[in-house]
Amino acid sequence: MKPIIARTIAEVRAAVRAARADEQRIGCVPTMGALHDGHLELVRVAKRNTEFVVTTIFVNPTQFGPNEDFARYPRTLDADVTRLEEVDCDLVFAPAVDEMYPESLTTVEVAKLGDQLCGPRRPGHFRGVCTVVLKLLNIVQPDVAVFGAKDAQQARIIVRMVRDLNVPVEIVVAPTVREADGLAMSSRNRYLSPEERAEAPRIHAALRAIRNRAIAGETDAARLESALNHELAAIPGARIDYASIVDDSTLKPIAILDRPALAAVAVFLGSTRLIDNITIP
Amino acid sequence: MKPIIARTIAEVRAAVRAARADEQRIGCVPTMGALHDGHLELVRVAKRNTEFVVTTIFVNPTQFGPNEDFARYPRTLDADVTRLEEVDCDLVFAPAVDEMYPESLTTVEVAKLGDQLCGPRRPGHFRGVCTVVLKLLNIVQPDVAVFGAKDAQQARIIVRMVRDLNVPVEIVVAPTVREADGLAMSSRNRYLSPEERAEAPRIHAALRAIRNRAIAGETDAARLESALNHELAAIPGARIDYASIVDDSTLKPIAILDRPALAAVAVFLGSTRLIDNITIP
Repeated sequence: MKPIIARTIAEVRAAVRAARADEQRIGCVPTMGALHDGHLELVRVAKRNTEFVVTTIFVNPTQFGPNEDFARYPRTLDADVTRLEEVDCDLVFAPAVDEMYPESLTTVEVAKLGDQLCGPRRPGHFRGVCTVVLKLLNIVQPDVAVFGAKDAQQARIIVRMVRDLNVPVEIVVAPTVREADGLAMSSRNRYLSPEERAEAPRIHAALRAIRNRAIAGETDAARLESALNHELAAIPGARIDYASIVDDSTLKPIAILDRPALAAVAVFLGSTRLIDNITIP
Repeated sequence: MKPIIARTIAEVRAAVRAARADEQRIGCVPTMGALHDGHLELVRVAKRNTEFVVTTIFVNPTQFGPNEDFARYPRTLDADVTRLEEVDCDLVFAPAVDEMYPESLTTVEVAKLGDQLCGPRRPGHFRGVCTVVLKLLNIVQPDVAVFGAKDAQQARIIVRMVRDLNVPVEIVVAPTVREADGLAMSSRNRYLSPEERAEAPRIHAALRAIRNRAIAGETDAARLESALNHELAAIPGARIDYASIVDDSTLKPIAILDRPALAAVAVFLGSTRLIDNITIP
């Protein structure tokens, strides 16, 4: 069945209220649209945990920097709705910017977890993410909200925000969905030229390689990080934004792999910035 | 009936869930305890609007500056509970600091509305207030939350935060309750020496005097502000922290009283900082 399309907060709340009155649990999948199989998997996860799933589609201006791709970010609502129908999404919330931000003055920030990786490279990004996600959670009031593991830092920050602010929702982080050749699915993959697309899987390959080295016994984070940078630098047309081995929960740099770690990278292929990560047990 | 006393978030949530299952609407009155008749009036207002009222008592460390009165702020839980019983409060949530802040990294901030009056004089104060109020609202999930008009800037900031973040709660701002001689009730009044207490009503008298001048036709805000400062300076032992005429909704300074204004003051009597305000229609 085609999902309900809601453009206003009042419509979402009315639909959610009706579903709740019908004893359905509410799931929420916040997205910026331009949906790919990774997003659809998040909806499936939400649908396994709840009965009434709301997918939000909102290209949030406050999480883009002035020189980032807000204006050209793909907006493909009709195609998105068609795909959401395939996975039994019940409601699509696709608000206009004015519906979400009628001269908003309030911001939400998570300290420390935003100090590394994407944080310093995208000033204000996580503040924008936290603020919009909290708004969406307050609008939908879901029992469960699902985020993708590809955005590793975002997922950790949201989990922390929800815990710190006692937001009454369960956050589920679902595994990254990949193309057959290993490239992490991303709405930004469509920016890639055919040549860039052909090289892009080497990002994941590099992450897997250093994970294998760690599993084989290498515990020196600096050595692994250097190997990772070396592999990424070898990709034609690639420019490394960062490639770091960090503590999996605090996201702080670590010296020795004596606890769960995360290898996280951001790489420009041409003008397209791709992120990916892998956990090192 | 004596209210339930909850020390943990889990207890509050269980009690609220039971009340909701019983089709009761939930009210919330966030306080720092040391309750006076002003607080009890907030509970009465909540009780008129809802069936199950939760009063929170938490001296929130994050809203006090390093040189402020966090350590000596009065803590009178037993007396507070007795008084809350008089006004049919259903539940008292009195958490320990650790229950509210297990190493929290997340903060909420409202821009602009905190730039004047108490904001610059108490750096971080409103960030602390917003963060703890949002936490309490998320813990209690009330239909209605009631705040006092005496804390005029706080009330405006909370209304704004709730609107900006789409928090699903109705905020009610209840009028300031005063002693017979006009002094605004405050937990900090108990700090006053008998001499200071005798002079304290002159703060409200000064506010009333300039309100009357405005009603009589004076529209020049600078002239009113100067008269207000003059009256306050005449109080023996008083030190003016600020005494300002501002736009009632933006809290920005105004030149001409061509729209609703707020006269707001903070005055030290000895070491005790008292605030009060009056609206000028």
